[in-house]
Amino acid sequence: MINLSQRMVALGTAKSEIREAFAFAQARAAAVGPEQVDDFSIGNPSVPAPDTVKELVHQLMDTVDPVKLHGYTPAQGEASVRQALADDLNRRYGTGYTADHFYLTAGAAGALCCALSALGCPGDQFLTFAPYFPEYKVFVESAGAQLVAVPARLEDFQIDFAALEAALSPQVKGVIINSPNNPTGVVYSQETIRRLAQMLGEKSRAYGHPIWLISDEPYREIVYQTAPLPWVPDFYDNTLVCYSYSKSLSLPGQRIGYVLVPPQAEEADLVYAAICGAGRALGYVCAPSLFQLVVARCAGQTADMAVYRRNRDLFLDALRSMGYTCAQPEGAFYLFPRSLEPDAAAFCERARKYDLILVSGDSFGCPGHVRISYCVPTEQIQRALPKFRALAREYGVGG
Amino acid sequence: MINLSQRMVALGTAKSEIREAFAFAQARAAAVGPEQVDDFSIGNPSVPAPDTVKELVHQLMDTVDPVKLHGYTPAQGEASVRQALADDLNRRYGTGYTADHFYLTAGAAGALCCALSALGCPGDQFLTFAPYFPEYKVFVESAGAQLVAVPARLEDFQIDFAALEAALSPQVKGVIINSPNNPTGVVYSQETIRRLAQMLGEKSRAYGHPIWLISDEPYREIVYQTAPLPWVPDFYDNTLVCYSYSKSLSLPGQRIGYVLVPPQAEEADLVYAAICGAGRALGYVCAPSLFQLVVARCAGQTADMAVYRRNRDLFLDALRSMGYTCAQPEGAFYLFPRSLEPDAAAFCERARKYDLILVSGDSFGCPGHVRISYCVPTEQIQRALPKFRALAREYGVGG
Repeated sequence: MINLSQRMVALGTAKSEIREAFAFAQARAAAVGPEQVDDFSIGNPSVPAPDTVKELVHQLMDTVDPVKLHGYTPAQGEASVRQALADDLNRRYGTGYTADHFYLTAGAAGALCCALSALGCPGDQFLTFAPYFPEYKVFVESAGAQLVAVPARLEDFQIDFAALEAALSPQVKGVIINSPNNPTGVVYSQETIRRLAQMLGEKSRAYGHPIWLISDEPYREIVYQTAPLPWVPDFYDNTLVCYSYSKSLSLPGQRIGYVLVPPQAEEADLVYAAICGAGRALGYVCAPSLFQLVVARCAGQTADMAVYRRNRDLFLDALRSMGYTCAQPEGAFYLFPRSLEPDAAAFCERARKYDLILVSGDSFGCPGHVRISYCVPTEQIQRALPKFRALAREYGVGG
Repeated sequence: MINLSQRMVALGTAKSEIREAFAFAQARAAAVGPEQVDDFSIGNPSVPAPDTVKELVHQLMDTVDPVKLHGYTPAQGEASVRQALADDLNRRYGTGYTADHFYLTAGAAGALCCALSALGCPGDQFLTFAPYFPEYKVFVESAGAQLVAVPARLEDFQIDFAALEAALSPQVKGVIINSPNNPTGVVYSQETIRRLAQMLGEKSRAYGHPIWLISDEPYREIVYQTAPLPWVPDFYDNTLVCYSYSKSLSLPGQRIGYVLVPPQAEEADLVYAAICGAGRALGYVCAPSLFQLVVARCAGQTADMAVYRRNRDLFLDALRSMGYTCAQPEGAFYLFPRSLEPDAAAFCERARKYDLILVSGDSFGCPGHVRISYCVPTEQIQRALPKFRALAREYGVGG
């Protein structure tokens, strides 16, 4: 008789709707030709990393001693790299961070796992807002805690503060936000962040312990609105910022990101130490050393993301004109319109008749919606629009 | 009041003797000049990655579409990469592995964490043999299990089978071996592996469940003996091989390795699924994509490690001729001689008077010994030998 970790077996065999949709799209493309299949299932950046990345990699390989270049860095990352990231944020946000506030990680997933494991104690709850990235549940449970999803305010996907207040309790160790958001593309307004900070501050005082705000920001640099994105630690001291270069530099496979513990946070040094401990317990050792140097020298740069804005404008206007209802996405590269029938999975199934591959909101804890990833060539969207129109007409929607 | 994970705080603030020794060496080098300080504390490869690595990185950056090159791979790693690793092992060991038996990880630490978390259930014990790599305890406890160290056979650091038999019980889920070994440099003989396999097989049958053999092999390619290193899965079906390119290709900072689940293992598919689940739970997402391609194209190559052999021969002969007692190291880049007084920490302290930086065996669960890392320039060893001689004379040892 074999006795494995039942949790790991379940996680390893669980069907992911996103992966299944992607696999279906690949199979259809092989069967009917890729130009017939319009796959909007995957959130992979479709623009290349900036040329600087290539130049830097060539230059680092040619000029840095390989023993140093490929060697272990300190667990928290090379000090000069962390200082470069601090300098960049200080320049942009007028903050006073130093190298000592950054812990480099293998992407945002690594950052979230370290932050959650550092904070999580048995019996703790972490809240997030539906719809949410499904791996949050996995990472929170790995930290020995429980994820509770606060229902969405469906008209604009800002925070429903009555629902949040109802969910807050002394058990709540932290709240995870993700703005710009996957899967809605919505950006939290300054007013939302201010009210959130106020409520968490009041409840922290009432409960006699901090409620941590974990700000998952892989889409921070992909913003369409003219209003600046609020810098969350300016509004709430006990914020941990989790960042990734996967989207901003189009480097998702290289696994590089960080946790920032702002010095204003309560017992920031102890929290930072616990994050170091979590990195050790999770077997991370250090973030990949070559790309530590690359991102330090790319600080403040991004890939050319103009196509994402073009895609959003084209796609959003067209879908709305066809009668689809969709909250205003001001960042990331997702649309999250309402499904044209209550069962979003059935709607996605019907879309597949047109070789139109979508993902239901159910995967994100928000039924009745579908996620559309528009990090694709613009021509794919142009080609797919008549399919969306025909699909709407099946439901008697649109002209 | 702040309430963090006490385990993570403890892991993040724990003093590591190795790190402390390394920091001391750095401080002394700054004070008295680096040529006065002989630091043997750190197990960082001192030879560069082979030139092929540089050529491949340049070539991949110039020829592969950056969206693909820097994109996510499947969680288990790019299929073509896994096939290349299988082909290489099949060529060397006459095995019949395929891509489906490999799960690429962020180095051996990631491989161990995935394997242990896949297997570990509450109440489980994992055994290892002292002296052992101290992070084993951290990784086993992260998997919710307990590490038990079986005492060493001090004369040659092969397995003490009476001690192993005494430690085996139905609670034991697995046994971790590390040959060539850190910190002793000892290689398990074929006879040791054969007897180990026989005992684990008998006990598995007696207990009615498999006892897994986790073979941690980052030093597999660094071997001095003429006898070939036994390929562990040939001797025991329920073996999980954890490998890293950190030492063989001198790429420790790039975090790339794998777990191999041989198809002969009991319910191999389920074990593999649990490893995939563990990778997900630990937030690994995928192994760094650029270096996946690099190691696939370097399969079977190593850095030029001739200096390690030269260092071993020089160092071992000299220390023995001075009266030090040291088991025969046939791999890796460590010597593990007996301390010249029972308290190895006191011995290391005395060595520091000569600016000779060693690490006590206590850190590895084996008091009365010291670890010497000889992955250093040969000149450093030549320079340090008179210090070792003077130190021995303080204890009345040697001529």
